Amino acid sequence: MTATHNEMANAIRFLAVDAVQAANSGHPGMPMGMADVATVLYTKFMKFDPRKTKWADRDRFVLSAGHGSMLMYALLYLSGVEDVTMDDLRNFRQMGAKTAGHPEYGHVDGVETTTGPLGQGITTAVGMALAEKMQAARYGKDIVDHYTYVIAGDGCLMEGISQEAISMAGHMKLGKLILMWDDNEICIDGNTNLTLSDDQCARFEASQWHTQKVDGHDPVAIEAALNAARKSDKPSLIACKTTIGYGAPTKAGTHDTHGAPLGADEIKGMREGLGWHSPAFEIPQNVLEAWRSAMARNSADRDAWEGRLNKLDAATKAEFVRTDAGTLPAGWEDTLNAFKKKMAEEPPKLATRQASGKVLEVLTASIPEMIGGSADLTGSVNTKTPSTASILNTDFSGRYLHYGVREHAMSAVMNGLALHGGFIPYSGTFAVFANYMMGGIRLSALMGKRVVYVLTHDSIGLGEDGPTHQPVETLAMLRSMPNFYTMRPCDIVETAECWATALKAEKTPTGMILTRQALTPLRTTHTDENLSAKGAYVLAEAEGGARKVTLMATGSEVEIAMAARATLQSEGVPTAVVSMPCWELFDQQDAAYRASVLGEGTVKVGVEAAMRFGWDQYIGSDGGFVGMTGFGASAPAPELYKHFGITAENVVAQAKARL
Amino acid sequence: MTATHNEMANAIRFLAVDAVQAANSGHPGMPMGMADVATVLYTKFMKFDPRKTKWADRDRFVLSAGHGSMLMYALLYLSGVEDVTMDDLRNFRQMGAKTAGHPEYGHVDGVETTTGPLGQGITTAVGMALAEKMQAARYGKDIVDHYTYVIAGDGCLMEGISQEAISMAGHMKLGKLILMWDDNEICIDGNTNLTLSDDQCARFEASQWHTQKVDGHDPVAIEAALNAARKSDKPSLIACKTTIGYGAPTKAGTHDTHGAPLGADEIKGMREGLGWHSPAFEIPQNVLEAWRSAMARNSADRDAWEGRLNKLDAATKAEFVRTDAGTLPAGWEDTLNAFKKKMAEEPPKLATRQASGKVLEVLTASIPEMIGGSADLTGSVNTKTPSTASILNTDFSGRYLHYGVREHAMSAVMNGLALHGGFIPYSGTFAVFANYMMGGIRLSALMGKRVVYVLTHDSIGLGEDGPTHQPVETLAMLRSMPNFYTMRPCDIVETAECWATALKAEKTPTGMILTRQALTPLRTTHTDENLSAKGAYVLAEAEGGARKVTLMATGSEVEIAMAARATLQSEGVPTAVVSMPCWELFDQQDAAYRASVLGEGTVKVGVEAAMRFGWDQYIGSDGGFVGMTGFGASAPAPELYKHFGITAENVVAQAKARL
Repeated sequence: MTATHNEMANAIRFLAVDAVQAANSGHPGMPMGMADVATVLYTKFMKFDPRKTKWADRDRFVLSAGHGSMLMYALLYLSGVEDVTMDDLRNFRQMGAKTAGHPEYGHVDGVETTTGPLGQGITTAVGMALAEKMQAARYGKDIVDHYTYVIAGDGCLMEGISQEAISMAGHMKLGKLILMWDDNEICIDGNTNLTLSDDQCARFEASQWHTQKVDGHDPVAIEAALNAARKSDKPSLIACKTTIGYGAPTKAGTHDTHGAPLGADEIKGMREGLGWHSPAFEIPQNVLEAWRSAMARNSADRDAWEGRLNKLDAATKAEFVRTDAGTLPAGWEDTLNAFKKKMAEEPPKLATRQASGKVLEVLTASIPEMIGGSADLTGSVNTKTPSTASILNTDFSGRYLHYGVREHAMSAVMNGLALHGGFIPYSGTFAVFANYMMGGIRLSALMGKRVVYVLTHDSIGLGEDGPTHQPVETLAMLRSMPNFYTMRPCDIVETAECWATALKAEKTPTGMILTRQALTPLRTTHTDENLSAKGAYVLAEAEGGARKVTLMATGSEVEIAMAARATLQSEGVPTAVVSMPCWELFDQQDAAYRASVLGEGTVKVGVEAAMRFGWDQYIGSDGGFVGMTGFGASAPAPELYKHFGITAENVVAQAKARL
Repeated sequence: MTATHNEMANAIRFLAVDAVQAANSGHPGMPMGMADVATVLYTKFMKFDPRKTKWADRDRFVLSAGHGSMLMYALLYLSGVEDVTMDDLRNFRQMGAKTAGHPEYGHVDGVETTTGPLGQGITTAVGMALAEKMQAARYGKDIVDHYTYVIAGDGCLMEGISQEAISMAGHMKLGKLILMWDDNEICIDGNTNLTLSDDQCARFEASQWHTQKVDGHDPVAIEAALNAARKSDKPSLIACKTTIGYGAPTKAGTHDTHGAPLGADEIKGMREGLGWHSPAFEIPQNVLEAWRSAMARNSADRDAWEGRLNKLDAATKAEFVRTDAGTLPAGWEDTLNAFKKKMAEEPPKLATRQASGKVLEVLTASIPEMIGGSADLTGSVNTKTPSTASILNTDFSGRYLHYGVREHAMSAVMNGLALHGGFIPYSGTFAVFANYMMGGIRLSALMGKRVVYVLTHDSIGLGEDGPTHQPVETLAMLRSMPNFYTMRPCDIVETAECWATALKAEKTPTGMILTRQALTPLRTTHTDENLSAKGAYVLAEAEGGARKVTLMATGSEVEIAMAARATLQSEGVPTAVVSMPCWELFDQQDAAYRASVLGEGTVKVGVEAAMRFGWDQYIGSDGGFVGMTGFGASAPAPELYKHFGITAENVVAQAKARL
């Protein structure tokens, strides 16, 4: 049985409209407008086997305009992805349904990334397209050769992050990245000409993109444009001129179709206008079969690909399978442990950013899938190692991305690298600029991806650059994020332990918070156990009697706590120092361990060159705290520590005042 | 006495180089490269009276590449701003010096905005240029007619926020905004071609800018370009081709000059090469006099302007002076109080976003300098009122900015409006997108500007849009920011009080955190006192005996606390409910008040549909908490509250478990 293009596209439209109506909530306008484009893409081009949604060499599809989630779910259902049933569509946006309000990675098969926050999808797709180029450089085009398609709306293109993504994609010549822009001239406040006068094609061309304009309701033109885009060796923009809410008799072309159900009357009129006679949530058999048979073409491709994979030599195949699965190579931890032992025995006085650089030398040598980078601060954040040659637009075999001064894109591109599979991304900027990439950091956490943010210059300890560059709130901000490990090691041994923990955290991103200034090594006795993996531990127990004071600190302030302990001990006060490199991990320990570390009933003082906010959970609201109470200042670091009173003397005084 | 252009420009170069050398820290390369451009700008064009740095109609100059702060300080010193002495330059980057590592607003005269975080300066300047157009539409070109000049580097242009700014400025036809780009082809990681292939002029032209390319070391060409830019009715980009570290004999043109002192030998060679015979921190008398006399041309202009101001009718002049000073109009608070009384007496059941809309109707009617806006969510965030007509690129007399989906720019543009003077900006987006503008929010706080962020859809209460749109960490993030008021009112009366408090906070920005869903009115007895201004207060005291339980809540959860109180009271447990709309204000109250509210010795339970992070300071680490422990989900709001256990029953259970 056959079906026309219009019938196949209308199937998307009515699934979207009826599901939004049933949910009494959602965004029908975009799926209605982009149904033709999506139908051509899926039925003619997408290399996607509905029965093997995780096929490594599949084309990636990213719905950057995530509010149009019913387009995604309709495509998955019509394609024949088993995980998406008609009942799931009926339950759109209901408790426990796979069909959440926005497409959520890990929630349903076939959704490649979580979208909704605008601009993230485009940028994550840049990461996926980069990963494709990088894997192809390693395994050849027989094994890795796929496209990354994106559908984006005006909102995505208005977000600044999209410019960072466009600029980076153009520079890197990501020829297999194809962006279909839903050019419907409508935004929520009205016509886009209320806020926008950009010539988008000219803008993309300025960043070295191939561009085309096409009638987004003409399947022949769409097919021709996709063919041309695929042939270009530049990333490609297809501006698809569409009518938002296409098919709605009175609301089409207006923002009334954007974010609300159409209403029963409008839907009735739409059925009449488009000649669609099936009730809600019923797809005519010929249409469904046409969809399923169109997608069936992929299974032979996939079989052929598996044949090619099996012809690789055993070691190469094993490496592809291992890195695609995200499994770390054998032996990496022993190597790191030997390094840790050496560092404990011959402790260097280093900034933790430098310590991290040394740890990364060891890790990147033994874990080839680690991909470094920085937002134009390579020399400052110590993320480049002898193993990580620069990735160039002429050579993707390298392992280091020069992200440029594009922090927000960096976060989302790392998400894309991690989502694509095959790579473990890490990269760095100054800690205060976590602010610039919080949108991407949040998605790392929400999706549960192993992405490591190297965040250096982590306090007033950076000195003269002053308050614009001195984080005081950043630690608290990151700690308030669910499923994110905020790690702040105190010396090179803890830094090695934190890196090991971050790499083993397969479903949690990590922020590695590191100093600019040199620190005194404190972990000078080797232990095979990863003490930092417990989040907090007793670095120095009280001596000469039962513990009376517990000093808790992180990172650069642990040595201040140790100095304070020396004074208190010398005055006969049994004092312990607790190093707390990762609160989130400490909170996961059992109550007995936590109590033993925190020293119930002892006087507690926290020390951290940051706001107190969040500390009371450990020190109590009556505990002492030595840290910051506002923004920093511009001066040499030692003077700033003195000026803001973050000194051993003050720690001692805070403890004594409570004894 | 006269001096040549080169002498005048070299004065900047040597001040920069010698100050960085003395500080042993800083960024000489940019001031050296842009000295010629800056000299032409200041000596030939800048309408800036060094003796009256706050002259309302002065040209604004923004050093978006804030790391080149010595350019700013050298310009201020050479121009003759009294607040900047040679001793201040000698003390560059030292404790307590006015000459901080990056230019800081409020720290020294003549610095119009704090810069350093890249891209913020450009965008803040867009706000200033908008304010100029808006003031000119109100008072005429006799009173308001100035340019806004920006110097930006490659880093600024790579940041996504710059695209939002460029797009907005082009759309709004800000013809008096002139951006001088330091096109030196150098970024920190090396040549910009490592990361960048953009045709910047084409990019700006795509956003409707006028563009020119010029040799940034040719004063005649620079002057001609500035003349042409000033004539254009579009915003103007001047791409200034420069050599970073111009004049350094071996390091010029390399990133070695970017962020480190040149070293004594290099500086010696530079003195020889440029024929500069004065020692460090000495400017030849003829050069200094040439600078001072060039700037002296402005005093006559300023006198003439004051004459024109004085010729305005008294009411118009008074309005200009009042709004420029940031003083609120007489009577606004009485009007608001009358509204508050009415709302207490006839309490409506509204979402607090709607309540805020109603409060804004009252406020914008009586405070004409309030300028609203939203990031393309006008209908959802309720920021537009009958008093605030849209500001169009054909008519700047309106009071509402359609920022587009450009949250980050929105924050920095609001900073620019507030810094320019004459306006009080507020605008809205969803609370979770505070993530997208944290860079600008941080600068509002650091600069201490009265900017109000309306952040709606503040919890799982937004329902079906799901976890991408449901903040759980945002409250904690904002509360961890110094000098920022995070306000979360529980009904329309508290919303009115919070708005009043935000408007009176002349040196602190505010986040107004509001619900999507309707709330039960709780403040149904009028009081003239602004209870919310204390940050937290006893909404319902315990009855039938001494207080045993204190339930603390904010926003939408206060009504849950009230329901729990009803149950506990009915079971004979004297229970108080504390509403805590603003923690930061509560923390400023005296200890006795705080203790009386928190109910020392009582069982404490916090209720907030967000992470517990930060709550322990009030409830103690042994206190009860009913809220979120991770990300939300997609479903109707009432089901989500039940699913995540944010119910009165759970609050009661938490209290009872501790009795």
